[in-house]
Amino acid sequence: MPVLDFWFDFASSYSYPAAMRADALCKAAGVAIRYRPFLLGPIFKAQGWDTSPFNIYEAKGRYMWRDLERICADLGIPFKRPSPFPQNSLLAARVAVAGSHESWHDEFCRAVFTAQFGEARRIDDPAVIGEILKAVGAPQRPTFDLAGSDAVKLKLRTQTEEAGRLGIFGAPSFTPEDGELFWGNDRLEAAIAWAKKASG
Amino acid sequence: MPVLDFWFDFASSYSYPAAMRADALCKAAGVAIRYRPFLLGPIFKAQGWDTSPFNIYEAKGRYMWRDLERICADLGIPFKRPSPFPQNSLLAARVAVAGSHESWHDEFCRAVFTAQFGEARRIDDPAVIGEILKAVGAPQRPTFDLAGSDAVKLKLRTQTEEAGRLGIFGAPSFTPEDGELFWGNDRLEAAIAWAKKASG
Repeated sequence: MPVLDFWFDFASSYSYPAAMRADALCKAAGVAIRYRPFLLGPIFKAQGWDTSPFNIYEAKGRYMWRDLERICADLGIPFKRPSPFPQNSLLAARVAVAGSHESWHDEFCRAVFTAQFGEARRIDDPAVIGEILKAVGAPQRPTFDLAGSDAVKLKLRTQTEEAGRLGIFGAPSFTPEDGELFWGNDRLEAAIAWAKKASG
Repeated sequence: MPVLDFWFDFASSYSYPAAMRADALCKAAGVAIRYRPFLLGPIFKAQGWDTSPFNIYEAKGRYMWRDLERICADLGIPFKRPSPFPQNSLLAARVAVAGSHESWHDEFCRAVFTAQFGEARRIDDPAVIGEILKAVGAPQRPTFDLAGSDAVKLKLRTQTEEAGRLGIFGAPSFTPEDGELFWGNDRLEAAIAWAKKASG
């Protein structure tokens, strides 16, 4: 079965609708999806940005929130603008990496997006992340312990470096097995089609 | 009939596929399209950029060219990367404004895009623009004369200011009559649907 890597930062706004759409679309196309959380911070820093470009460029930011609101309405998923934006996604990313081989991993990732962009909750709050872990049936204490380990920190750093090597400069991004790069929620369908074509 | 304004800068890469797609999609939807050329330069300057963001951010620029190549292949339209990029679009924009009430106007605009992104020709070259005028059945000398007039220069400046007031920060952009803003070739379908809904 062809595999499509889904690269996201938990703080990325357009990664929310992508995460809500990707599984069903991939399943229908016979493509396996692999969630690859990474950190946009170091990648933005290399471009000279110390925050989201949606904050740096005001008109673009205003547009993004309106566009996201329309997209969520079309998909029938909740939308509530979080504050602050972007949120610190380090804790969520480390917890996800800690659970990367667990059956609850993908559901945890989607629940983090819904909490943040559907309910405007803070994902840098360990209590919120703990609640989500509980809701998806994951053990809280051992997962938090593992999330704080050097092994997980290193794995997240390695994953972020791999994103950079693939040419990724924003999120969400999608890479089929041949390394072709697709950027943006609106390129998800094209990425899935490419993954199918490239493998067959 | 609902009207959709199609805002573009002739030097904008993603405006090329948008210009090639917009007429047929609008016609099928029963929406009238109105071409609104403007200049991105002053708008980029206000964001602190002195060239295209695709040049400022290397990974993003590399991606854009590859993405555009894929999009053109999917549409079955020619693609040849122009150099330099971005081109100076002032002459083409003034000629378009000079012909804004002429029957050849829209065809002229599309031909400028094809010359630039399909054949890598220079649109700041009066000989190229003259050839295109001839090909679309427009009188060259009177059109160039009008394009250099104060009235046309003012109209282009006014149109660019209007784009800024509408919140436009990039091209292509689309605005239905209620002022809702859609940005990007990939938002064309959503903009057409919005124009229909807003008018009915």
